[in-house]
Amino acid sequence: MKRRGLLIILSSPSGAGKSTLAGRLRAWDDSLRFSVSATTREPREGEVDGKDYFFVTTEDFQAQVGAGDMLEHARVFGNYYGSPRTPVQAAIDEGRDVLFDIDWQGAQQISKSALRDHVLSIFILPPSIPELHRRLVSRGQDDVETIERRMQKSWDEISHWDGYDYVMVNDNLDETEERLKTIISAERLRASQQPALMTHVRMLQTQFEER
Amino acid sequence: MKRRGLLIILSSPSGAGKSTLAGRLRAWDDSLRFSVSATTREPREGEVDGKDYFFVTTEDFQAQVGAGDMLEHARVFGNYYGSPRTPVQAAIDEGRDVLFDIDWQGAQQISKSALRDHVLSIFILPPSIPELHRRLVSRGQDDVETIERRMQKSWDEISHWDGYDYVMVNDNLDETEERLKTIISAERLRASQQPALMTHVRMLQTQFEER
Repeated sequence: MKRRGLLIILSSPSGAGKSTLAGRLRAWDDSLRFSVSATTREPREGEVDGKDYFFVTTEDFQAQVGAGDMLEHARVFGNYYGSPRTPVQAAIDEGRDVLFDIDWQGAQQISKSALRDHVLSIFILPPSIPELHRRLVSRGQDDVETIERRMQKSWDEISHWDGYDYVMVNDNLDETEERLKTIISAERLRASQQPALMTHVRMLQTQFEER
Repeated sequence: MKRRGLLIILSSPSGAGKSTLAGRLRAWDDSLRFSVSATTREPREGEVDGKDYFFVTTEDFQAQVGAGDMLEHARVFGNYYGSPRTPVQAAIDEGRDVLFDIDWQGAQQISKSALRDHVLSIFILPPSIPELHRRLVSRGQDDVETIERRMQKSWDEISHWDGYDYVMVNDNLDETEERLKTIISAERLRASQQPALMTHVRMLQTQFEER
């Protein structure tokens, strides 16, 4: 009997280090799958369709939501974002864990879905607001206006920190990485994640009865 | 704001390796406290009052239960066993985790108590029934009759495996030890175990408002 994979949700304001950490987790365990979000926003330079996002039209997006093909979806800055259900379901049925880089709205939806018993949700907090701002500026990706918009959104995100199973302050990337690995390793050991235990207990029962 | 300690419950049939594992955990982290049970049974040779057990009279035991001074208690083979509340409460209030070596009845009582949000329950399964029997025989502590009684009780214990947060088969002591450490380390990172996070989020909020 195969373990069903976990849905590992990583949320944080942008600039808290989430993408770096997600990358490190995938380097640590290449059986981890990444849930590629669908979005109606325009691709940024260098973004690859199917890798960074599935870039879709608003019409297509809404059709997929209507058909129940999105595990979660939300509208942010006028664009839709969502997690397509099919690849996630295929991965967890194979016993692979799936990593989600989504915001609190998506995290709440998945945590209330039929898959809620397999959800592990983690929130990454920045060490400080000035540091968060500094990181957004230093990555040189956004103009001043966009950075300001991200800062506003960051507080909206942070204010939902207490709905998560685990919350940590990312003041040291290596330490945060170790913590994430510890948490994922432990969650895989939960009784509810190990259907093979049932087989073992049945064997013990047979052995006991046949003594 | 201090973290409240965890109540870490280890249950298993006798012979599954629980005492050895508990000893290794205490060697790993000397801040771990061990909950010394009270019992009305006679001390065995070499057992020290206050270290192995608190040896008490039936009258005293019942008085303590009546006064609400036992976190859990049960009657096994005609003797009472229980976990005195006061030392546990003192330890967890200081932020120390407390290890309980108790059976499924005690585990259920603590898991339903007012402290249930701080309980981490782990069940250790033996690799097989013949191996469990072999271990009971080879430790040379009990006569044939007692071993047979322990074997009967072992199935009663195993049959309650699925009420625990974590369940593992102890087929390799070192691996089981590592798993236990991973689980305890992860549980300490749970949001609910880290009241200091609230202080950090309040600081972020102030910083955000003062921008």
